[in-house]
Amino acid sequence: VLTAAAYRESLHDGRQVQYAGRMVADVSSEPAFQPAVEWTARGYAEHYDAQPGAVGPYFQIPRSVDQLRSFEARLKGWDMATIATAQGLLMAVTAASRMRDRYPVYAERALAYFEDIGRRDIRCAMAITDAKGNRSLSPGAQPDADHYVRITQTRASGVVIRGAKMHITSAVNGHELIVMPTKRMKPGEEAWAFAGAVPVNAPGVKIVATSVAQDDPDPDRYPYSSAHAVPEAMVIFDDVFVPAERVFLGGEVEHSGTWAHSLGMWERLGNLGHLIDVAHALVGLADLIAEANGLSRFAHVREKIGNMAIYATMLTAALDAAITNADVSPEGYVSPSELFTNAGKFHAAEHFHAVIRDLHDIAGGAVLTAPSIKDLSNPDVGAYVEKYMRTMAGISGEYRMRLFHAIRDLTADAYAGWLTFTILLGGGGLHAQRAVTLKHYDMDTARRLALEVTGVTAC
Amino acid sequence: VLTAAAYRESLHDGRQVQYAGRMVADVSSEPAFQPAVEWTARGYAEHYDAQPGAVGPYFQIPRSVDQLRSFEARLKGWDMATIATAQGLLMAVTAASRMRDRYPVYAERALAYFEDIGRRDIRCAMAITDAKGNRSLSPGAQPDADHYVRITQTRASGVVIRGAKMHITSAVNGHELIVMPTKRMKPGEEAWAFAGAVPVNAPGVKIVATSVAQDDPDPDRYPYSSAHAVPEAMVIFDDVFVPAERVFLGGEVEHSGTWAHSLGMWERLGNLGHLIDVAHALVGLADLIAEANGLSRFAHVREKIGNMAIYATMLTAALDAAITNADVSPEGYVSPSELFTNAGKFHAAEHFHAVIRDLHDIAGGAVLTAPSIKDLSNPDVGAYVEKYMRTMAGISGEYRMRLFHAIRDLTADAYAGWLTFTILLGGGGLHAQRAVTLKHYDMDTARRLALEVTGVTAC
Amino acid sequence: VLTAAAYRESLHDGRQVQYAGRMVADVSSEPAFQPAVEWTARGYAEHYDAQPGAVGPYFQIPRSVDQLRSFEARLKGWDMATIATAQGLLMAVTAASRMRDRYPVYAERALAYFEDIGRRDIRCAMAITDAKGNRSLSPGAQPDADHYVRITQTRASGVVIRGAKMHITSAVNGHELIVMPTKRMKPGEEAWAFAGAVPVNAPGVKIVATSVAQDDPDPDRYPYSSAHAVPEAMVIFDDVFVPAERVFLGGEVEHSGTWAHSLGMWERLGNLGHLIDVAHALVGLADLIAEANGLSRFAHVREKIGNMAIYATMLTAALDAAITNADVSPEGYVSPSELFTNAGKFHAAEHFHAVIRDLHDIAGGAVLTAPSIKDLSNPDVGAYVEKYMRTMAGISGEYRMRLFHAIRDLTADAYAGWLTFTILLGGGGLHAQRAVTLKHYDMDTARRLALEVTGVTAC
Amino acid sequence: VLTAAAYRESLHDGRQVQYAGRMVADVSSEPAFQPAVEWTARGYAEHYDAQPGAVGPYFQIPRSVDQLRSFEARLKGWDMATIATAQGLLMAVTAASRMRDRYPVYAERALAYFEDIGRRDIRCAMAITDAKGNRSLSPGAQPDADHYVRITQTRASGVVIRGAKMHITSAVNGHELIVMPTKRMKPGEEAWAFAGAVPVNAPGVKIVATSVAQDDPDPDRYPYSSAHAVPEAMVIFDDVFVPAERVFLGGEVEHSGTWAHSLGMWERLGNLGHLIDVAHALVGLADLIAEANGLSRFAHVREKIGNMAIYATMLTAALDAAITNADVSPEGYVSPSELFTNAGKFHAAEHFHAVIRDLHDIAGGAVLTAPSIKDLSNPDVGAYVEKYMRTMAGISGEYRMRLFHAIRDLTADAYAGWLTFTILLGGGGLHAQRAVTLKHYDMDTARRLALEVTGVTAC
Repeated sequence: VLTAAAYRESLHDGRQVQYAGRMVADVSSEPAFQPAVEWTARGYAEHYDAQPGAVGPYFQIPRSVDQLRSFEARLKGWDMATIATAQGLLMAVTAASRMRDRYPVYAERALAYFEDIGRRDIRCAMAITDAKGNRSLSPGAQPDADHYVRITQTRASGVVIRGAKMHITSAVNGHELIVMPTKRMKPGEEAWAFAGAVPVNAPGVKIVATSVAQDDPDPDRYPYSSAHAVPEAMVIFDDVFVPAERVFLGGEVEHSGTWAHSLGMWERLGNLGHLIDVAHALVGLADLIAEANGLSRFAHVREKIGNMAIYATMLTAALDAAITNADVSPEGYVSPSELFTNAGKFHAAEHFHAVIRDLHDIAGGAVLTAPSIKDLSNPDVGAYVEKYMRTMAGISGEYRMRLFHAIRDLTADAYAGWLTFTILLGGGGLHAQRAVTLKHYDMDTARRLALEVTGVTAC
Repeated sequence: VLTAAAYRESLHDGRQVQYAGRMVADVSSEPAFQPAVEWTARGYAEHYDAQPGAVGPYFQIPRSVDQLRSFEARLKGWDMATIATAQGLLMAVTAASRMRDRYPVYAERALAYFEDIGRRDIRCAMAITDAKGNRSLSPGAQPDADHYVRITQTRASGVVIRGAKMHITSAVNGHELIVMPTKRMKPGEEAWAFAGAVPVNAPGVKIVATSVAQDDPDPDRYPYSSAHAVPEAMVIFDDVFVPAERVFLGGEVEHSGTWAHSLGMWERLGNLGHLIDVAHALVGLADLIAEANGLSRFAHVREKIGNMAIYATMLTAALDAAITNADVSPEGYVSPSELFTNAGKFHAAEHFHAVIRDLHDIAGGAVLTAPSIKDLSNPDVGAYVEKYMRTMAGISGEYRMRLFHAIRDLTADAYAGWLTFTILLGGGGLHAQRAVTLKHYDMDTARRLALEVTGVTAC
Repeated sequence: VLTAAAYRESLHDGRQVQYAGRMVADVSSEPAFQPAVEWTARGYAEHYDAQPGAVGPYFQIPRSVDQLRSFEARLKGWDMATIATAQGLLMAVTAASRMRDRYPVYAERALAYFEDIGRRDIRCAMAITDAKGNRSLSPGAQPDADHYVRITQTRASGVVIRGAKMHITSAVNGHELIVMPTKRMKPGEEAWAFAGAVPVNAPGVKIVATSVAQDDPDPDRYPYSSAHAVPEAMVIFDDVFVPAERVFLGGEVEHSGTWAHSLGMWERLGNLGHLIDVAHALVGLADLIAEANGLSRFAHVREKIGNMAIYATMLTAALDAAITNADVSPEGYVSPSELFTNAGKFHAAEHFHAVIRDLHDIAGGAVLTAPSIKDLSNPDVGAYVEKYMRTMAGISGEYRMRLFHAIRDLTADAYAGWLTFTILLGGGGLHAQRAVTLKHYDMDTARRLALEVTGVTAC
Repeated sequence: VLTAAAYRESLHDGRQVQYAGRMVADVSSEPAFQPAVEWTARGYAEHYDAQPGAVGPYFQIPRSVDQLRSFEARLKGWDMATIATAQGLLMAVTAASRMRDRYPVYAERALAYFEDIGRRDIRCAMAITDAKGNRSLSPGAQPDADHYVRITQTRASGVVIRGAKMHITSAVNGHELIVMPTKRMKPGEEAWAFAGAVPVNAPGVKIVATSVAQDDPDPDRYPYSSAHAVPEAMVIFDDVFVPAERVFLGGEVEHSGTWAHSLGMWERLGNLGHLIDVAHALVGLADLIAEANGLSRFAHVREKIGNMAIYATMLTAALDAAITNADVSPEGYVSPSELFTNAGKFHAAEHFHAVIRDLHDIAGGAVLTAPSIKDLSNPDVGAYVEKYMRTMAGISGEYRMRLFHAIRDLTADAYAGWLTFTILLGGGGLHAQRAVTLKHYDMDTARRLALEVTGVTAC
């Protein structure tokens, strides 16, 4: 288990990171990456354990419903890179379990990887979404064969891969990339059926980062994102060698979907848990700002807060049911019910915009037009700003302004855009989430109930 | 435990039932009441137990989460009168528990009543909603003091009550009415703070029934409602005497809300369970009719079925979470979480209309214009009807017509109106359900999370 | 122009109508058809004009925006059979205009038909929707070639057709059927590209009727539907001969879509106008019942009425814009903008269910459980019913009960099912309405605006 | 009519503008204000007319429906400061018309002001929303009497005012503030019933600005907002003297609501027109990005684009109907129908979030994670970025990236927050817009239609 300082030092490993048109010399001191690096560093500090052989609590496979419930509860408190690492490794273990019968070698490699990462206490990012080219064509039919990551050479010692992956959270501030197919490949598309692990500093890996963090984020103006914004990246694999022991899938198209499915399950669990906390925080912000504005007893305000609370409660119910009704693998690994996690995820995405609308309607325009906290100490106008932003005894101007800035940061500024997309598209967009739910829905029972109602015994 | 025949006979007890402007001489043979009477009779037949001292499985107080889960699972299979009886008695026990400290006599009477009903194996209907008069005035301020049921005389042996209760399901085909205040009464409104049990044939009780059942329901045209439509009633209490041992609240305004709250909890659990079955049946009908129409692979049809399945799944999650997170009373009675049952109930009511719209959009206009099943045996046109209503091998015209009739009966005819209202207003309408959810929502935690996001330590 | 009596007499023309498994001997006296026959008769009575050569005002082609506006305003006051006739003939004229260049003979026949119907002052029903068989197969690919109406023989004097049409409103109480293809046919499907006019009593025409009217509708219980419910029918064409002068399309597949498109335009205009009246009536019912319940000043009730009023207003805006932005044909025929009528129709269908939910939430459960009006004159309970259903000075029990019954009849009973389907599916269902709107939407301008925003000059 | 240079120069007038905690020395060169200053300057350049006595086309009172239609069409092309000026002056004229009977002096002053502004060709900002303090207390009941702007002294030559106004768009880059009460005042609140005009550089006026523009906005990253972001401001009136000829209301509480109502009408017209352009641009972006992604033919993508097009079309219909059904004042001033503008505005706000969600779902995560345009010219990775961001022949990586950046700028970044709030709260929030619609809705007709349906002739 590393210290925070060792973690920061570990980022000086020769990784090639580009940002805003230029090469980043030092990832750990680039202002736009600071929120993510420092969040991860706080996570290391918190879990630091000097005992030899200590392993972080995030390297764990739940083996009962109770363990799963407790895992989910703790996961919410971790930094995003650690959450991604925990999810990614559980995904690897789950996928390994599903491939064990036909491909025991991949299962062994995945488990060995799980152990190795735990021993080194490093952080992994998931690399899933390909460049994709023309969405109406399958990987093998793209004019540019590299639009999905593919194996360009197979050697005895490993394979060489080429392509690009999109939307990689924590590539900049993590250590390894777990690469996997974005979708099921068909026979003939063996070259694109690749999964494996690649260090971010491997030769040929090029990271092009973006960030919703400001170049010099002011915590007064960005109370949440200045400590939590994470960079995203496009990662280019320019003929990167992957040694055999890090190849988890090498052309077996029938298992190309196994990885994304396995990830989906764990990723949506983490997402849903995080979202529930976001949802509760939004309810709380609505309640606090209603109180600060003197609106707490207005009927239409109570209604909106009630709707928001019901949203948060329904998400909580979905997660709770996903855990209570967990699936168990032959090895005894316990994973959340796909039916309930997907339905919950869909519900979250479907209605999130309405929740934001309700919060904005309660809070009012000062979310955007509240003066900056710095204006409070401006000798020319500071006292006026305080005077006019306060509303009643116990609600100072500064306190109310901080609420407005927090609401703006979370729901109406650059970070809000990132959050909205994560909620909407994490797990694949409404269409994909609906389809996965339907796949796990017990349609036979529904049809049987329908026939009973109809009074028909058979079709 | 009674036989079905004994149950039918028990309805000849002198009850005064009016229907469509006339007195009903024999409740058990009145065509519009047949579906309800026979449904209840089937329930008696199913549970009949000749053993002396046998008690129906519906007279039970869950004492663990597992017992609650199993109780809920079985409850869904019972007839509506039995469900209401089980819920009503659990309500009485719950309310008794909550009043025990200050009013042990009421707690004892309620428990004695629970035992007595079990021993006699009879059915109870809940009498809650008052006539209400002008909704903007409280009970004590109504020009007509009888617009909420009230005590007009108090005697040593009991009390006399007057007023009317609305929307009483199963009054016609049950045996006793559990009467309770529809809302919290204020000091000065002691006369309206009454709860107690009254047989439907007590002197002064007058039942004015309505029904969505047809006067002579054709099972081919009404495949579901011909066996499940239940009459509703307005029940008039024209100075009815209630003996002291059946009075559960006699003027103690501070407990006037306890009854409705206790009922709400159990009623919404039963409602939600029933609704989940309805929701699954609607998904099944959508899937079957899409298949019968040859639409199964159309993207927009898959989307609608997916939306419906997610609706059903979210309700299931809410119920599951309500049970997993059950409340426990000091006596060890285990009851569903009010937060989750209410949120689930609200969600069901909020989105039910959209579910129906999706089903209708998939099924198409033949839901209303499909010829009758009788037309199939009409020598002039029967063969044509079969020919033109069938769509492909394996989907006969008759089968498809029966699906249409079932969809119409459940979602676009007289019974559908009743079902829609039950879902929307059972538990008090969207406004009330939202308010109850909010009351049980953990706002302190939400505010704490919001303050963390805001970076403010105290208000 | 006929008298009401002449109209009723005209129905004794040998038509073959089946209903509920039996042949109907006399359409004009069959109880379930009475509401429609008498509504149409009232229309005849209202427009009767003894002047020789007089022509009903519904036989008219608008030639300016003002004429179109005035036509639409008057149309809303007509009975449904007359509205369908006016729309059907305008459709024929519009389709004729569109086919004139290549097929002048059809244009002439359609215009001659228009004149002839006007002279005879009879009523036409539109016969569009085919039996359709398996929706995933096109007409020519169905195992049963008759699943779409087709020409089975072509003779010098005309053609013979076979098949069935569904959802034909007013076939029972009208005189002629205007038959047209339900969709665009492809080359090779010439036999199914048929449009023409057929009297309902032509040999081989068999009508299988359904109705949402009660067998003996009680105006107290069904205040609206007892005077306005219209029968629907499946019409079977069992090798029916159509003389050449009544054939408007006979195999020209490139114009097979012209008819449905032309009808769509006029039908959606009529539907939208009718719907707007329904929407305003629902707002009015919400306001009246809120007042009668004493709820007028409750904030959540004001909100729901406001939402309903906005719904009605947006529909009004769509119709108004459709007229203001009317299209003009080369002949100077003025027809409503397809963009706005379709968008309005979609909006109406998309949100109708939510409007009903709001009305139900305001009105409360007495919509379904209010005693019958007959119970008011029941000597045993009449006075009690009046006492408990009244709410305040000026709101009698009877008045309030009549509001409840009207709301039930329109929104929660058999007629409500019909109305809901008409709103949802009239014009082809949400999917079709969306597609038609998109087809008429000015996407080029939208893309140009988007490129301006993007700062890109060309793709 | 001023030149662009003269306009820029006019901003050096001693105004006191604070931003981000410091005094702004030169408004016209402050980076965050550049987009607004230059947009306004472009407007001046476009309308410059060297003719003596020339008056800008935005200083105009529509006197017919056609003039109103043409005014609205041109207004959409103007910069925001000019739009606000045109709306503000029309509001003043409308309010003057409504006060003329009792207070002709105010009407004359308002008209003289209209003329004067036109002659000087300057720009006005509306100052409406007060600090408000505790929303549950009225202006006169606030602990701090200054929480609503009020008259602190009345002199023969004018009045002195104190307080603060919020959300003032274009205060920084305009010339005068039209100050008016935010709501109706009650008797006893005469001091708060003030309307008048105040130059932004009047002694005692202090402007505290905020901006969603970046400090140095990059047009490649912010293609729209870098040219269109406008600063907002809180404006403090620290005992500011207003000469009598610029006082338009001075204590007459019965007209305190007239100003906000008059403004509402014109503001919502301008908003709605602007929103329609935004809506069309969003549809266009959805269509372009669907095409660029290869998704154009996917059914669920067509559906979402269809929904977006219907949204844009319904807003267009509302605006069109508002103009067609315009109101006319006694003086012949023609103004848009309040019923339709409000309903349209409500609809826009109610559904905007869903439109954004649909666009995001189509566009995908690259909206946020697309590399910057600068990365294209990065020698290390530029060619890779182009290679992997392109999708097919004709869709270059750069073009597609520019679409993503435009979508992010408009819908998922700082400017998007501002736009969302403007749409939601411009015109007062959903609650206020609903209430205003209801006020103008013809409820009498709706109730009459409802009674007809009910078959009751009078209540």
